[in-house]
Amino acid sequence: MIKKKAVVLLSGGLDSTTLLAYAIDKGFDCHTISFSYGQRHEVELACAKNVASLYDVTEHKVIEIDLRAFGGSALTSEMKVPKDRSVLEMDKEIPITYVPARNTIFLSFALAYAEVIKACDIFIGVNAVDYSGYPDCRPEYISAYETMANLATKSGVEGERRLNINTPLLSLKKSEIIQMGLDIGVDYSKTFTCYDPNVAGISCGTCDSCLLRKKGFLELHMKDPIQYQK
Amino acid sequence: MIKKKAVVLLSGGLDSTTLLAYAIDKGFDCHTISFSYGQRHEVELACAKNVASLYDVTEHKVIEIDLRAFGGSALTSEMKVPKDRSVLEMDKEIPITYVPARNTIFLSFALAYAEVIKACDIFIGVNAVDYSGYPDCRPEYISAYETMANLATKSGVEGERRLNINTPLLSLKKSEIIQMGLDIGVDYSKTFTCYDPNVAGISCGTCDSCLLRKKGFLELHMKDPIQYQK
Repeated sequence: MIKKKAVVLLSGGLDSTTLLAYAIDKGFDCHTISFSYGQRHEVELACAKNVASLYDVTEHKVIEIDLRAFGGSALTSEMKVPKDRSVLEMDKEIPITYVPARNTIFLSFALAYAEVIKACDIFIGVNAVDYSGYPDCRPEYISAYETMANLATKSGVEGERRLNINTPLLSLKKSEIIQMGLDIGVDYSKTFTCYDPNVAGISCGTCDSCLLRKKGFLELHMKDPIQYQK
Repeated sequence: MIKKKAVVLLSGGLDSTTLLAYAIDKGFDCHTISFSYGQRHEVELACAKNVASLYDVTEHKVIEIDLRAFGGSALTSEMKVPKDRSVLEMDKEIPITYVPARNTIFLSFALAYAEVIKACDIFIGVNAVDYSGYPDCRPEYISAYETMANLATKSGVEGERRLNINTPLLSLKKSEIIQMGLDIGVDYSKTFTCYDPNVAGISCGTCDSCLLRKKGFLELHMKDPIQYQK
């Protein structure tokens, strides 16, 4: 049987690794895509490559884009990454780690890739629960993107294929994502989450991303297999 | 009076130069953006820079993206650019010069730029008449993009600003675009249109893009001020 092709956005983090495992588990022929976008945490690119290779994906592409050309985010500029915030604080406003239009740009490259390989499915690990207030993680955004994508491409014109933006993690809490991954054998020691690791690539343990990850494992009464500075 | 900021997609071609002149004429504070995307016709980048400078825009950004990573188009791969086709032939199907998801990718960068500088207006020179069958030049696509863009960004969440995708050339014939430009003083000798220029940067005169341009001037009973190989 010929497997259905999918493009999976892979950062090598906890969410996108679970996402890839899920797509593989559902029987998709996965093509992964990562972005080198001037992020502080470039160690995630090595992690993504490693995860892609662990899952033996058909092709792994790394796209170079320079989001630093615009600035506007703590992840791509000299602004400080916020530390030790409560979940309540994280929910209050859009944080400075938000990268303007990042998911829109990422999905647009995934769309180009999907069109070239004739894939009908794109997987993105957005999450509307522990989403730290990013606008481009909301379900209504994803739905609008899907509508646009079907008008943007040849398939839309020729009516051959319908393109789906799959977001299986959208309504899951971090602990539920981890449970889902564990159920299909994800090894979380191979994933990387931190916004602000030290030079050795060790996670800080205090940025929003680390705190949400730790909270997820805590809720499952499990030890997170990765190392933290604190 | 403080001018409204706009991001204008500028390739240095006939359409986008007219577009910039239009936005300037309407009183916008223009920030232009061009893309180096592995296109055959890199001479257009020099042209875009020159046009941006002629119009004294506030800022001109060139974004490097590698669409060759995906291939799939005659503009970014080794496929041959079609020549000497009739307008009827051009309309028949989506040509191989179509770059998968190109406008979606371009608009996504424009969206990031607009968000960072807090602009509410993006101008793109798409055209649904002489559009050579590109799906991402259709009005329904632009409208879907605008809806998505307003959900993708901080402004959408905070309800502060509404983002507009402006397409003043959408329903104009090539000759009408040229007339519009002439009325506001565009110097078309400074614009560049060809998909497949020679090493000296001289337009081929026979690709779809050159043929549509020539036809536009012909309909106005005017001489196109640029030079052609034939």
